[in-house]
Amino acid sequence: MSETWLDEIRWTDDGLVPVIAQQTGSGKVVMFAWMNRESLALSYTGGYAVYWSRSRNKLWRKGEESGNRQKIVSISIDCDEDVLLLEIEQEGGISCHTGRESCFYRTLQDGVWQKNSPVLKDPAEIYKK
Amino acid sequence: MSETWLDEIRWTDDGLVPVIAQQTGSGKVVMFAWMNRESLALSYTGGYAVYWSRSRNKLWRKGEESGNRQKIVSISIDCDEDVLLLEIEQEGGISCHTGRESCFYRTLQDGVWQKNSPVLKDPAEIYKK
Repeated sequence: MSETWLDEIRWTDDGLVPVIAQQTGSGKVVMFAWMNRESLALSYTGGYAVYWSRSRNKLWRKGEESGNRQKIVSISIDCDEDVLLLEIEQEGGISCHTGRESCFYRTLQDGVWQKNSPVLKDPAEIYKK
Repeated sequence: MSETWLDEIRWTDDGLVPVIAQQTGSGKVVMFAWMNRESLALSYTGGYAVYWSRSRNKLWRKGEESGNRQKIVSISIDCDEDVLLLEIEQEGGISCHTGRESCFYRTLQDGVWQKNSPVLKDPAEIYKK
């Protein structure tokens, strides 16, 4: 496969690109993460989101442990070619490690971050071995 | 006003936080940018998005030149407290400097970034003085 499309991305000095994951259909923004070249190539060829974990410094196959994989519907790039937008189908309906649909579950109200959505599944249940 | 909510954000070493802007109603992700503490405080108190331009190293009052301001509907934060999601009402219906609704106007198809949406207004018209 030609990798010209990968070369067109303006990677950070660390070789990463920020990625926004958005649920297809509802349009809900569920997650923000990073990819490196390898994880993006794997995402595209495999059809499921693979990120780069900056904290663990390794590939992060989303849903590997929880089962909540993200099937990729489309990959878009912004005008500056340095941010990606993933349209995904979230398996299990849970993107966040807290057991919620979206990681963006707190909204500013009167100067306080207030929870806006419920825990759908106990993380202890999601991540048990 | 208490600034506790600003202290809860995990700013980068450069004092910034990544921000996703999403059109209210349609849910379309239109832009990705950065804010520093001052620009976020100004956004919240003023009701219109003010970003931090990393290329120009100064406050960027979105729409100041084009008139395409972003009225803030809500501000949400992610589970790690290091990314913001802005629900906005895009004045003029154009977020991108190319004259398109969204900056994410190219989608990967068969290994090529293909344009997915039209220019609504000629940038030369948008940015003329």
